[in-house]
Amino acid sequence: MRLLIVMAMHAEAEPVIERLDLEAVANPPWAAPVPMRLWQGSLGSLEIDLVVNGVDPDSGLDLIGTQPATASAMLGCKAFKPDLVLSAGTCGGYHARGGSIGKVYLAHDRVWFHDRRVAIPGFDQLARGGYPVADLAHIGSKLGLEPGIVSTGDSLDLSPEDNKRLEAVGAHAKEMEAAGVAWIAGLFGARFTALKAVTDMVDGQHPPEEEFFANLKHATAKLADALVRFVHELERMGDLPA
Amino acid sequence: MRLLIVMAMHAEAEPVIERLDLEAVANPPWAAPVPMRLWQGSLGSLEIDLVVNGVDPDSGLDLIGTQPATASAMLGCKAFKPDLVLSAGTCGGYHARGGSIGKVYLAHDRVWFHDRRVAIPGFDQLARGGYPVADLAHIGSKLGLEPGIVSTGDSLDLSPEDNKRLEAVGAHAKEMEAAGVAWIAGLFGARFTALKAVTDMVDGQHPPEEEFFANLKHATAKLADALVRFVHELERMGDLPA
Repeated sequence: MRLLIVMAMHAEAEPVIERLDLEAVANPPWAAPVPMRLWQGSLGSLEIDLVVNGVDPDSGLDLIGTQPATASAMLGCKAFKPDLVLSAGTCGGYHARGGSIGKVYLAHDRVWFHDRRVAIPGFDQLARGGYPVADLAHIGSKLGLEPGIVSTGDSLDLSPEDNKRLEAVGAHAKEMEAAGVAWIAGLFGARFTALKAVTDMVDGQHPPEEEFFANLKHATAKLADALVRFVHELERMGDLPA
Repeated sequence: MRLLIVMAMHAEAEPVIERLDLEAVANPPWAAPVPMRLWQGSLGSLEIDLVVNGVDPDSGLDLIGTQPATASAMLGCKAFKPDLVLSAGTCGGYHARGGSIGKVYLAHDRVWFHDRRVAIPGFDQLARGGYPVADLAHIGSKLGLEPGIVSTGDSLDLSPEDNKRLEAVGAHAKEMEAAGVAWIAGLFGARFTALKAVTDMVDGQHPPEEEFFANLKHATAKLADALVRFVHELERMGDLPA
């Protein structure tokens, strides 16, 4: 089995790289002048490829959002033909739906976009995403990971329009990459899931940009812990459910 | 010189393919199970590659928006190393800034995102895009194409938040792909521009989805005409300005 992990920020990826003992690949097979970086390793029969979006060449800042996520997923899927693609990262959570800082969600049901609106029949649904998530609930319950509805948009704040769509799907995890990755996974015939650790509360008292940095290290450690246990469980399972 | 044209909808591309006498390539060099389609041709010393996003495998609908645009641009840039990447398509225009149905804008100055908000210093700028546009104003004035500020978002409607950002840059063309294409062009060291024909008025009386279909054929013919003349002028010029 081959697993492709896609992550946006280097700070999120670092503890995962360390704990899964992944090795940096200096010359990734995509051989293109793109910032996406690659780490590889294995666990038993499970091959693991980790693609991180990399940094903006001008500012040196981590590339976040659905454009870089799409690019990373496509390069990874094209190069490695993974069985499962996993979008890992941090997210905003909801008190109203049992969320708390540091909680890690395993994606459940479908993954949505909440910031795309096209009022033309057919295109309206395409704009919402709604890509299927692999049913790995048995791993989730074994590891104590809560199933969560993941919804993706390119903004850190919450606009009234975005809020409508997040509430319509009952989102547990508001984040910025998963649906972009899921779309590509689907094109390549790979299964998809996501692990998202809460850094800030969407329905809390503080602006997300404050909470995000205050809780990034804590949430990132929780994410790495969950991801490492998830990977071990996946290897033990040996195959994905049909 | 090599030109990569990226388009979203087949209906927009059809007259361009015909008038530039481009040939469909059954097996594009990306050899991946993606819907992006390729046409190729040349005009004198100018090599032309046209990538169209293709259709959603489930619904058969044209893939629009920044995800498919990113994927198309990356596949095209990786395969053909173009000197210039051109995002061609339709857009919403503004009465307030001299727009009208069927008017074709040549991108000017910078191309923006209007639907991405990240209130963290540095990331706020990345979220806005603002990718540079090649200065081809001399071609524009020779061909009677008006220079226009192009701004990109994944929604057809106009939310208050998006409106703020469109007004902040004085957008002439509100569309759904250009900045996604420009980001990829920049990564590959290619120059970027866009040609956008107005199908609907953002500050008009009618919902965009009504005007869009009513004016699609007219705008698409205008776009093809402008694009063909642009390509001839580019070939005549022989090189891009430094």
